[in-house]
Amino acid sequence: MNATVITIGDEILIGQIVDTNSVSIAKRLNAAGIVVREKRSIGDDRAQIAESVERALRETQLVILTGGLGPTKDDITKKTLAELFRSPMRRDERVADHVARMLAERGIAFNDLNRAQAEVPACCTVLFNAHGTAPGMWFERDGRVLVSLPGVPFEMEHLMQDEVMPRLRARFALRQIVHRTLITAGLAESMLAERIAAWESALPGYLKLAYLPNPGAVRLRLSAYEVDGASVAQEIEQRFEALRRLIPEYVVGFETASVQELVHRTLVERGRTLAVAESCTGGTIAARFTAMPGASAYFRCGVVAYSNEAKRDLLGVDAEALARYGAVSEQVARQMAEGVRRVAGADYAVATTGIAGPAGGSPEKPVGTVWIAMATPSGTTAVVKRCGTDRGQIVDRASAFAIGLLRDRLDAE
Amino acid sequence: MNATVITIGDEILIGQIVDTNSVSIAKRLNAAGIVVREKRSIGDDRAQIAESVERALRETQLVILTGGLGPTKDDITKKTLAELFRSPMRRDERVADHVARMLAERGIAFNDLNRAQAEVPACCTVLFNAHGTAPGMWFERDGRVLVSLPGVPFEMEHLMQDEVMPRLRARFALRQIVHRTLITAGLAESMLAERIAAWESALPGYLKLAYLPNPGAVRLRLSAYEVDGASVAQEIEQRFEALRRLIPEYVVGFETASVQELVHRTLVERGRTLAVAESCTGGTIAARFTAMPGASAYFRCGVVAYSNEAKRDLLGVDAEALARYGAVSEQVARQMAEGVRRVAGADYAVATTGIAGPAGGSPEKPVGTVWIAMATPSGTTAVVKRCGTDRGQIVDRASAFAIGLLRDRLDAE
Repeated sequence: MNATVITIGDEILIGQIVDTNSVSIAKRLNAAGIVVREKRSIGDDRAQIAESVERALRETQLVILTGGLGPTKDDITKKTLAELFRSPMRRDERVADHVARMLAERGIAFNDLNRAQAEVPACCTVLFNAHGTAPGMWFERDGRVLVSLPGVPFEMEHLMQDEVMPRLRARFALRQIVHRTLITAGLAESMLAERIAAWESALPGYLKLAYLPNPGAVRLRLSAYEVDGASVAQEIEQRFEALRRLIPEYVVGFETASVQELVHRTLVERGRTLAVAESCTGGTIAARFTAMPGASAYFRCGVVAYSNEAKRDLLGVDAEALARYGAVSEQVARQMAEGVRRVAGADYAVATTGIAGPAGGSPEKPVGTVWIAMATPSGTTAVVKRCGTDRGQIVDRASAFAIGLLRDRLDAE
Repeated sequence: MNATVITIGDEILIGQIVDTNSVSIAKRLNAAGIVVREKRSIGDDRAQIAESVERALRETQLVILTGGLGPTKDDITKKTLAELFRSPMRRDERVADHVARMLAERGIAFNDLNRAQAEVPACCTVLFNAHGTAPGMWFERDGRVLVSLPGVPFEMEHLMQDEVMPRLRARFALRQIVHRTLITAGLAESMLAERIAAWESALPGYLKLAYLPNPGAVRLRLSAYEVDGASVAQEIEQRFEALRRLIPEYVVGFETASVQELVHRTLVERGRTLAVAESCTGGTIAARFTAMPGASAYFRCGVVAYSNEAKRDLLGVDAEALARYGAVSEQVARQMAEGVRRVAGADYAVATTGIAGPAGGSPEKPVGTVWIAMATPSGTTAVVKRCGTDRGQIVDRASAFAIGLLRDRLDAE
């Protein structure tokens, strides 16, 4: 079974917001064995919505729409769908009660616009939105399904989980999608491809190989769509085992989770703790860990020591090291890691100090130079990395390197 | 002039990555007066790429493609475009030299796959990619333009800026797109819409109004596409001034930048400094400020004090307050803000402490309860906010509230 995901909203087309809704929807559909054939973002325009929905219903069995369900005039999805399905509107009492109650709690008067939120096309099944005022809607035509959801990410998430996925599983006999990702390190993409060319050519047609280059690693993903999950997973296992025998020194493992998720799990399992001292990464490493539920079990503290004074006063970096070697140096990185480990009383600590640019570079230390140090019960290590030339890229790569360093150490213990 | 943006890659369709390329491209096109009619994400599939490109070239004058230009077999964009334009391949010497040099610097052997990267369809103009091995390509047919760019965000950005935008400006007589966003606070979306209904109805047809609800604020965006910029900007000014007279108590200003950008500018202009103490927001506030070039001028430090020990040892929060009121309390938030302001020697400080969930809530302090405090030269204030029920949403909203608090204070001074 295949699907189209359509996100509606001018704010997407002018680049005012990043569309994360379609990412989350794609993940959920994939996990259930539904192949997302295409994602589209279109404007709040009646003709374009109608044309796009009609085409998507011809091309795929399932269409999921988000956005355009607010109470104001610029939100026209519901009206457009009613016209498309040639359906009159009806009032849904449960939705009306819910909207009135939600507004009363917030001290907001109930008006005609809110009243309209309880109106739905008579031909659709209402998907009750416990977390907002705009209901989800489920339409069927000629065995195909169209689902319309509000664009507020959090409301959309709950409706996908509680209403849409259970209904899809009940309504369709879904097959399975299998993805498995192997991680290699030490070979550039083109060299890796050359080394494994014969292995790649021998893959059966239903296994799709993707190269995913990352800072410091190339990941190989094998995917199979709409198959018998168990037997294909076994086949992939065997193919990857053959690959491991081919390039044993370059295979570092499998991606079962993001690197920070792996570190998170290991720290929780072992009851060990972590602290972070960041200069150029500016809080990004701390934010990646604390984004995960349960991080408080091991995450003691992060210090974003941007100024030299903060490095000295909060982390105990000595003034001489700062003056002599500069803030971006092995010595300062080491002292930052050791300092935050000490003040936090943590088992492990990582620290970053680098030049994120665009200003501040020099011939010896160009923009992108980042020192990363790790302090552990068995000592301190430090590495220098060139993390690119763009500020966002430097922060991202330096954060990834630091978290990767932690993971490698935890793996080795 | 209108455009379609197409991003290619199975990783987008299975939700493995967030497509930020199309956001950035949309922003640039908008700024140059080009209307993005649709964004699409499709798989690494020859038929789908061909069909999608053909359709986009029928529907819009400009098509920008990203992705699928790597050296490996799963990257098929270039081959597909050569077929589509019925063009033989030719070798580009400048690209070949550049690829060889880049690989040599990284100690990578030059092989057939890299050699193929210097092959381009003979009919296209090469857009030289100084930062990577895959060149960009510019095709023309019947007065319409197709641009193919690598999917690596950083390489794509440079090519858009240095090659694509200047060529588009030279090639087409572009008109202008005007967006202006007014910020209201204190009225729910539906109440606001009711209050300004007459004003909204009187808007001329070429001005498009969008309601953009945010935590604590509803923004109103007026947009006009492909117009004479100066006269329309003046018209929007007058319309917004009429609106301000209609609801003076609810208009808080105009969005000329993100809230953190406004705070950033004000601090830089006034030569004042900032420190941040974060518990539930986990480094996100620090990361938002330090993402901006030049943040080191005012950003002294951030402390991610996740544990009670860190709150006590790094920020000087007293043990009694923690024991008596709990970590999520007005007292602790105030002490965190004052503590980080003191240790950092900063002019302004904000602090957050809350329950990000999913665990840790109680009837008195449910998940989503966040205390936000701000310490300034003229004293300390604190507010409590309900920031939703989802961990990511709570972190996002609490960060936005904290930064908004800072901005309001700086505005008032």
